[in-house]
Amino acid sequence: MPQGQPTTVPDDGLTTRQRRNRPLLFVHTGIGKGKSTAAFGLALRAWNQGWPIGVFQFVKSAKWKVGEENALKVLGASGEGGTVDWHKMGEGWSWVQRDGQLDNEEKAREGWEQVKRDLAAETYKLYVLDEFAYPMHWGWIDTDEVVEVMRNRPGTQHVVITGRNAPDALIEAADLVTDMSKVKHPMDAGQKGQRGIEW
Amino acid sequence: MPQGQPTTVPDDGLTTRQRRNRPLLFVHTGIGKGKSTAAFGLALRAWNQGWPIGVFQFVKSAKWKVGEENALKVLGASGEGGTVDWHKMGEGWSWVQRDGQLDNEEKAREGWEQVKRDLAAETYKLYVLDEFAYPMHWGWIDTDEVVEVMRNRPGTQHVVITGRNAPDALIEAADLVTDMSKVKHPMDAGQKGQRGIEW
Repeated sequence: MPQGQPTTVPDDGLTTRQRRNRPLLFVHTGIGKGKSTAAFGLALRAWNQGWPIGVFQFVKSAKWKVGEENALKVLGASGEGGTVDWHKMGEGWSWVQRDGQLDNEEKAREGWEQVKRDLAAETYKLYVLDEFAYPMHWGWIDTDEVVEVMRNRPGTQHVVITGRNAPDALIEAADLVTDMSKVKHPMDAGQKGQRGIEW
Repeated sequence: MPQGQPTTVPDDGLTTRQRRNRPLLFVHTGIGKGKSTAAFGLALRAWNQGWPIGVFQFVKSAKWKVGEENALKVLGASGEGGTVDWHKMGEGWSWVQRDGQLDNEEKAREGWEQVKRDLAAETYKLYVLDEFAYPMHWGWIDTDEVVEVMRNRPGTQHVVITGRNAPDALIEAADLVTDMSKVKHPMDAGQKGQRGIEW
């Protein structure tokens, strides 16, 4: 809001309907708050459409996103909207049988391999690849490969990638990119994170 | 992530615990996507903490936020987390008995009056004042009054205000401000909004 209108009509040979239903690649980057929260907010819309949703958390965190995880699991199990599968690096990577043997880089790569398998199988209609910009930024996962996989993914599968320092090639390939800029943050005033707000 | 640490220790006479539990005022502004979706993502965390949540939609929209609304209502009714009350300008302003007589400016003011009553009564622990920056920007609601009400609100009530063109005085008063900048949007390439993504 206000209601947007396309500023150009593209010469891509697609009908409006085809264009409207085009699979989208979102990137939420920048140093401000809201990158992941906006991705999970988007998942609420997908859930409401009855879409199967796959969440992949790519950076192991002491606090994870427990609020979002519990909420989306309750929604997924409610029988009213779409389903939700929630995978965590090193925990919910349930297809990884080896335990404790892999370092974080290997675990991130295992997750990416699974994302590729799910995209090929069209397992989900919305993929939340949370913090996935980091392993690309760190060089653990090849950005060019990610771009190629995204470009060639079959069907109508929407993907949201979050994290600071999203590589330029990813931004170039994305349909929608939002940069969350920090204007002001409580930590600047000595505030530590608090329950219900930061996790 | 990465885990933040306060850069300064404030000389405010508060203990870390008191400071940690300080009520926060969030502002999500800017022309990019994600302002409202991040606010609703935050509501998932609040719900997971068992907090009562009040959502107030301040701008009447053809599409509202049906995905978020349905999801939060299912969560609120699940009995597992907090409760959710969802108010829409001109619809869910259920305390307004007159029908069709008020213009949008009056309806926005009615909503704000109710927010003030709820803040005074400590009805909710999280308030999502969605698109509330617009009526302030348009001069329908006095920003100085909003700032004063926010400064003097009792207890621990967190408030998120979304919308473009958040007034400077509001940004000054806020604890956390994120500016969602548009890097790229499908509408620039002639894409219209699509179900499950835009609503």
